Amino acid sequence: MFVFETKIRVRYAETDQMGYVYYGNYATYYEVARVEMMRSLQTSYKEMEANGIMMPVLELHCRYLKAAKYDENLLIRVRLEKLPTARITFYYELFNEKQELINTGETTLVFINIQRNRPCQAPTHFIERLKTYF
Amino acid sequence: MFVFETKIRVRYAETDQMGYVYYGNYATYYEVARVEMMRSLQTSYKEMEANGIMMPVLELHCRYLKAAKYDENLLIRVRLEKLPTARITFYYELFNEKQELINTGETTLVFINIQRNRPCQAPTHFIERLKTYF
Amino acid sequence: MFVFETKIRVRYAETDQMGYVYYGNYATYYEVARVEMMRSLQTSYKEMEANGIMMPVLELHCRYLKAAKYDENLLIRVRLEKLPTARITFYYELFNEKQELINTGETTLVFINIQRNRPCQAPTHFIERLKTYF
Amino acid sequence: MFVFETKIRVRYAETDQMGYVYYGNYATYYEVARVEMMRSLQTSYKEMEANGIMMPVLELHCRYLKAAKYDENLLIRVRLEKLPTARITFYYELFNEKQELINTGETTLVFINIQRNRPCQAPTHFIERLKTYF
Repeated sequence: MFVFETKIRVRYAETDQMGYVYYGNYATYYEVARVEMMRSLQTSYKEMEANGIMMPVLELHCRYLKAAKYDENLLIRVRLEKLPTARITFYYELFNEKQELINTGETTLVFINIQRNRPCQAPTHFIERLKTYF
Repeated sequence: MFVFETKIRVRYAETDQMGYVYYGNYATYYEVARVEMMRSLQTSYKEMEANGIMMPVLELHCRYLKAAKYDENLLIRVRLEKLPTARITFYYELFNEKQELINTGETTLVFINIQRNRPCQAPTHFIERLKTYF
Repeated sequence: MFVFETKIRVRYAETDQMGYVYYGNYATYYEVARVEMMRSLQTSYKEMEANGIMMPVLELHCRYLKAAKYDENLLIRVRLEKLPTARITFYYELFNEKQELINTGETTLVFINIQRNRPCQAPTHFIERLKTYF
Repeated sequence: MFVFETKIRVRYAETDQMGYVYYGNYATYYEVARVEMMRSLQTSYKEMEANGIMMPVLELHCRYLKAAKYDENLLIRVRLEKLPTARITFYYELFNEKQELINTGETTLVFINIQRNRPCQAPTHFIERLKTYF
């Protein structure tokens, strides 16, 4: 299992008139978490696209337990439960500043060879860097 | 069962550098669909909030089958499979201009009495207007 | 002078916790207005990109006179005061449902030949369609 | 004069199909910069709203000199040229990782007493903290 944590400060732009973070914006928070996880492994999503592989999302699932509020510094814990194949599933847990679990989610992404526009296996160097954790 | 259809034109702002609609923006499309569904029933979400009931989202689930692209005029079909109680689940199907199914999703929302900040039953007039379809 | 009007319904996603439309979202409203203006001239921005010309924004200016609110059906009036050259300036006026002027703005965009990545003149067919109004 | 600098990493959600940051998203970057500036002065915008003062934007101006791209870690320099009165103007300069100036802008905001819904002077403690810089 590989676990990584990062923090995101809620922006005013991300709130709605209920005074909470708009429910669609958690997808962006998840994106930031998985991108920073990849960076922590000395790779990056940007580099992956530059190397001809993109990772569109196949599936998104969010559960909203408590509202996130403006200016809160949220902790996002992102987790891989198994090594990627042609797909990868990230699990997310978000905590507010009181350490309350406020949101959980999963996203499944697929590795796509951009030139062929077809699914492909996760890049070897990415799997190598993850292997020590599994 | 109650089914309603509406159309949404993809904005440039909603695309990302893959050239597709960013995955988090479907949540906004779902919002537009359920709001227009409510309007078609001679009620509105705005009016519901004005009457002291808000409907935060408890759960979101999206499946991305095909990419939505810039300027496409998407058809969104939104469906209620049963009458709301203290919760309501909307089912969504999105079609592109070639009538291809590109995305499916569900959202579960809860009715909250704003003053008490507690769950409550769906408003009677909303249930009454839906009843003829069930 | 060429003037075009279109309507935009304010989405919940576009509000912020002040209960107004977030100030950055007017840029998206302006985008919708100029895109629909181009469509009204039997051309489209999508087609322009497909034909190798993109139109990045050089300058944006917004004045916020009154707040736009959730679910309001805004009228956007967009205006060209002169024929485009290598640049084009759109002027915007937004009105709420009470016909109050709530926002004014301008955007200047440049025509870029995508292949050469260099500024170019506005496409002839676009100018031809506009000429009758000037 | 008071100058403050902060960094923002470009999110995938913020790009558009040109492969650049969508022009409307700079308004959010400006928001982050002014909010972090206020935090650096041991105050915060959140606290200001909690104390009954909100700061809606009256005017926004952006000039786009070069494109910001995905995953770039932008430096935002925000500047106050004079002490706030009932209004405050923030000036922004954005630099990419090559230290190129890519964007400049200004926003003018007004202090509003929320309860009275009327303009008011900037809070004394905010002015006091700024005074040493002027």
